[in-house]
Amino acid sequence: MSLIVTGSIGIDTVITPTARAEGVLGGSCVYFAAAASFFTPVRLVAAVGDDFPQEYLRVFDRFDVDTTGLERRAGSKTFRWTGRYHQNMNDRDTVDVALNVLAEDLPAVPDRFRDSRYVFLANTHPAAQLALLEQFPDAKLVVADTMDLWINTAAEDLSKLMRRLDGLVLNDSEARALTGESNLIAASHKIVAMGPKFVVIKKGEHGCLLNHTEGLGVLHAFPAANVVDPTGAGDSFAGGAMGYLASCGRIDLPAIRRALAYGTIVASFTIEAFSLQRLTEITRHDIDQRLSEYAQYLRLDE
Amino acid sequence: MSLIVTGSIGIDTVITPTARAEGVLGGSCVYFAAAASFFTPVRLVAAVGDDFPQEYLRVFDRFDVDTTGLERRAGSKTFRWTGRYHQNMNDRDTVDVALNVLAEDLPAVPDRFRDSRYVFLANTHPAAQLALLEQFPDAKLVVADTMDLWINTAAEDLSKLMRRLDGLVLNDSEARALTGESNLIAASHKIVAMGPKFVVIKKGEHGCLLNHTEGLGVLHAFPAANVVDPTGAGDSFAGGAMGYLASCGRIDLPAIRRALAYGTIVASFTIEAFSLQRLTEITRHDIDQRLSEYAQYLRLDE
Repeated sequence: MSLIVTGSIGIDTVITPTARAEGVLGGSCVYFAAAASFFTPVRLVAAVGDDFPQEYLRVFDRFDVDTTGLERRAGSKTFRWTGRYHQNMNDRDTVDVALNVLAEDLPAVPDRFRDSRYVFLANTHPAAQLALLEQFPDAKLVVADTMDLWINTAAEDLSKLMRRLDGLVLNDSEARALTGESNLIAASHKIVAMGPKFVVIKKGEHGCLLNHTEGLGVLHAFPAANVVDPTGAGDSFAGGAMGYLASCGRIDLPAIRRALAYGTIVASFTIEAFSLQRLTEITRHDIDQRLSEYAQYLRLDE
Repeated sequence: MSLIVTGSIGIDTVITPTARAEGVLGGSCVYFAAAASFFTPVRLVAAVGDDFPQEYLRVFDRFDVDTTGLERRAGSKTFRWTGRYHQNMNDRDTVDVALNVLAEDLPAVPDRFRDSRYVFLANTHPAAQLALLEQFPDAKLVVADTMDLWINTAAEDLSKLMRRLDGLVLNDSEARALTGESNLIAASHKIVAMGPKFVVIKKGEHGCLLNHTEGLGVLHAFPAANVVDPTGAGDSFAGGAMGYLASCGRIDLPAIRRALAYGTIVASFTIEAFSLQRLTEITRHDIDQRLSEYAQYLRLDE
């Protein structure tokens, strides 16, 4: 079923302890869309400036992504982000950020995208996420990402948004900030009480925790020995998961658990190279093969 | 099959952000033995001083633990430890420690324990672990725990020990210290190259990673919302796992994966109260019931 993502497209500079990638394609929407497209066609709504390189647009040709909603705005500049990873490759500092077009009006949603059933609202101001959500009256599953900035500065809008969501995705420190609970299980219970049917707390290299009104789920990350660049892991995770759900048309608890495993696997490929490089090299078959391998690691039967 | 544990018995004072337990029974050996005894009879070898309260000895009556090897040494004092947990209940500081009897001669291994097949060498100087190991000529599975102190001060003895082990158990920061690798998967590969057939890296609330010469395993921790005292979680984990292996008489990879799940579950009970309190209240049935619940959380099938 139709899956749409709204979010950022960026030009990233990523510095790791052993390498550096200058001015590569990034942004929540880009990782999400590429990851989801292994499972289902993806509709993308986002804005870039007129400085956005034409060859970066051609990357989407490699994936099943409808870029009708990608607005190239004259006189604006593309979002730019520079980040530096710590030795542990899990923590990072933002060295430089220029919101540029992200600070302007939201991109328009093409009319023919209004019937979208699966909606992912990547991280932005919750008031903007609410405004976008209004444009998808047929939505069957709405999931949003958020971050510390909005938890601290837009609590009321975030609270409104949460009552409209099926699912919220956020990382461990954000879950703690949102609830004031240091125990993540306790935090996840509080979040579900705030509105969404389920919450997924992402823990980076440690995996994720699902709290759904029908039950819990826990997933260790895929054990990756070779992490080149963790940027986009969270968005690839969400994209793989939502792509799988849209492809099977289900939103029950077992389907969500399996979806999170697919998200885990796609993210494990993303981090093997900078930007979308690794995702351009793999197929759905590679994903399924690694999922089988992963399922072996989790086996508890004798 | 016969399971033996050698390690410390302590009198602990535990301070958490919300509570305090003064002078309670603790020590690696105690948690290990209690946890393992849900699966198989356990033989214990350890020393205490003549200050050790009689009523603490009676705790072992609640578990299937043979205390013939528990030496009450006249003129010596029992090991004492005081620790304070941070708000996150995962990190802790040692506030005070008195090695006392642990700094003296090793306790003697009773002759009738020499035929032990499953041997767990809880954390102590690796030279002492080697000396203890010599006394179990029929050992089928030997697993040891270690810590930063020995990695930094007794590298050569630790290296000798590792070549004699089937399995090594240690936590994430220790695995990084031992190998110089910040990526835990890479660290686990290096450890297996140092001698043991497998290594289990414990990650506290995040679960554990198994690297076995035959394959990997990853386990998220049981999602516990109510953590009263994490002390002994790692030893209960090891005890539950070794107890299960000794009970089924297998040491192959699927058995080890299932054993780690049992260890995870027993540890999840341990942390629900101070000292052994919670373990005195539960039965094997409670453990199996929680394991089934846990297996649901891990399900990936549709």
